[in-house]
Amino acid sequence: MQNFVYHNSTKIVFGTGTIEKIGEIVAPVVKKVLYLYGKGSIRKNGIYDKTTTSLRNAGVQLVEYGDVKANPLLSHTRFGIDVAKKEKVEAIVAVGGGSVIDEGKAIAAGVVADNDVWKFYDGSGTEIQAALPVFAVLTMSATGTEMNGGTVITNEETKQKIGVISPQLQPVASILDPTALFSVPPDQTAYGAVDAITHLLESYFTKSDPYTPLQDRYAEGIIKTITEITQTMQNKPNDLTARSTFMWAATLAWNGMAPSGVGSWGAPNHLIGHSMSVLYDTPHGASLSIALSGWLPWYAEQNETNKKQLLQFGKAVFDASTVTETIERFRGWFRSIKSPTKLSDIGVDEIGLAKIAANIGENSPLWGLPEYTATFSESILRRCE
Amino acid sequence: MQNFVYHNSTKIVFGTGTIEKIGEIVAPVVKKVLYLYGKGSIRKNGIYDKTTTSLRNAGVQLVEYGDVKANPLLSHTRFGIDVAKKEKVEAIVAVGGGSVIDEGKAIAAGVVADNDVWKFYDGSGTEIQAALPVFAVLTMSATGTEMNGGTVITNEETKQKIGVISPQLQPVASILDPTALFSVPPDQTAYGAVDAITHLLESYFTKSDPYTPLQDRYAEGIIKTITEITQTMQNKPNDLTARSTFMWAATLAWNGMAPSGVGSWGAPNHLIGHSMSVLYDTPHGASLSIALSGWLPWYAEQNETNKKQLLQFGKAVFDASTVTETIERFRGWFRSIKSPTKLSDIGVDEIGLAKIAANIGENSPLWGLPEYTATFSESILRRCE
Repeated sequence: MQNFVYHNSTKIVFGTGTIEKIGEIVAPVVKKVLYLYGKGSIRKNGIYDKTTTSLRNAGVQLVEYGDVKANPLLSHTRFGIDVAKKEKVEAIVAVGGGSVIDEGKAIAAGVVADNDVWKFYDGSGTEIQAALPVFAVLTMSATGTEMNGGTVITNEETKQKIGVISPQLQPVASILDPTALFSVPPDQTAYGAVDAITHLLESYFTKSDPYTPLQDRYAEGIIKTITEITQTMQNKPNDLTARSTFMWAATLAWNGMAPSGVGSWGAPNHLIGHSMSVLYDTPHGASLSIALSGWLPWYAEQNETNKKQLLQFGKAVFDASTVTETIERFRGWFRSIKSPTKLSDIGVDEIGLAKIAANIGENSPLWGLPEYTATFSESILRRCE
Repeated sequence: MQNFVYHNSTKIVFGTGTIEKIGEIVAPVVKKVLYLYGKGSIRKNGIYDKTTTSLRNAGVQLVEYGDVKANPLLSHTRFGIDVAKKEKVEAIVAVGGGSVIDEGKAIAAGVVADNDVWKFYDGSGTEIQAALPVFAVLTMSATGTEMNGGTVITNEETKQKIGVISPQLQPVASILDPTALFSVPPDQTAYGAVDAITHLLESYFTKSDPYTPLQDRYAEGIIKTITEITQTMQNKPNDLTARSTFMWAATLAWNGMAPSGVGSWGAPNHLIGHSMSVLYDTPHGASLSIALSGWLPWYAEQNETNKKQLLQFGKAVFDASTVTETIERFRGWFRSIKSPTKLSDIGVDEIGLAKIAANIGENSPLWGLPEYTATFSESILRRCE
């Protein structure tokens, strides 16, 4: 095992009926907040009413700011920073999925910064020194942002979707009420499952330390569980057992635990997927199942160590007995939950493939993966089946 | 999954060469500390010099207080509280194993309390409202106290060994340097391994929610890893890979993650083991391998659900195919690392067995396990083989 620092201060309040606790959690800390949300689905499923009532009853003043987009945009973030500054809010309450919470973190950092917020993302080395406190009420499980310091923002002008991690952005507290997932439709459920699994697989396969049984088994246990319950969530949206299990699984998948001690590692599938999303507005999880379908066969072809690791994964999760079987079962599972595995599934033709490869090549240095040039990335993209 | 709150704010600084960082971790927070340690093994292996030098170089003033016993005593704790008050220390730096850190937490709570410290342990309902900050440098892995709010103290007058958990006692930061384990002898290494495994098994078997695949697999992965590496640590004390893997495994085993979401649960094996320790001064881990050897067969005999759970455990950890095989392989593994499985192994005769059973019966209500009367406990103790 390699040296690491693990520090995750977020308080998780998990379970049915916890949404109504947001007021008592926020009120002891701050009295005026930016209440951030997305496209209004929380108005339909009652979460808007529950959270605003709870906050107001606890004496918390709300400045509402909605319309956060999936793959949240820099322009909307910048406007939110202006609103938050003008209204002198003391914290962000983000009510939504990963996009809303990620934008909430960006606003939290931008409000107290002297520089434009994109400086934190553009690779210029500007570090986040401080941020307003962030509280989250999670309504869609996938990105793990509710229990980590990560944020991903899309710059629509430069066509870049870039992530940043800072301990300053760790939410103070996050409410995880699995009943909030009941209204998540089957496609978003699938993409969330793929996203959570991919988070675990990035360090699982790219780690520099070859012997990490704790981390390997941690990842395998969570992934196997997710593969067992995703179709149940799609077929029975109100299945509390499946939804609650998945909600915690997705948080555990990306809270810093899995990669702790594995040494250096990268996130090539996220790099590849982000380029699809930024060019084709592909949902994040959908882009990742395509990326993995191409990246895994490439990975296995490199050497015997990689093959062995892929076989260990296949045995643990899919009861597979060969590398080929592992890849086929994994792709088969993606298809069974209706998450795409081919570029043609999202309407990408030959010209599109070249554009995605070029975009990967441009962004790869920012991700610490300069070997992912356009040419190299194209060869991976051609393996997506 | 059941509702839960998870909040673990301890910063873990893990790896070789991290002991020397204690000064830079403590100095920004406090300037005068109670430096707590045990029987002086840290003077032999260099950790005393490394830590005191690091703290003094960072400008931290030390009030030294040594001689903490394994199964730390109330009398020594009370004296430590007097010293800490008189010297007006601002924090505790505990350098040692679970006993030193546990006493450090008790002193931290006792210093700022109006009541005698035992009031927090005696079941009177007195809650810990505040405590001095606790910093830990771990030199023996077993109890998980480095990343939780637990503390266990033995009252030598009343013959009680009782644990308390409070968020106030969560260490601010803990240094986990696996090279500190190189000097842990084979017997203590075994007992640490048994302790960590038992921590995971308590909620694994006694949980109220029957469907918790995430928590089950989390536990199985850590336990399997520990069973694979313990003999390596005993045969090659300086094996950095095995020591570092175990050090993190033991922390993960009792940091609140495993029982989160499993509903209500108890710690019957700890209850049974504590009574052995208090009456026979049995090392904690040794008492637990005896307790499990009797408790598991009793558990399996109760109903089919229990049998199924034990078989799941046996398959995952020992590749066993029956319940009997699971118990035999588990006992065999205890023997292979020279941890006892019988009461006679620790010199307990018929009269002693009755005394232990009576002690369990007296303490069981405090543990929330009133069904563990003397008579009932005796029937479990008779199964230890």
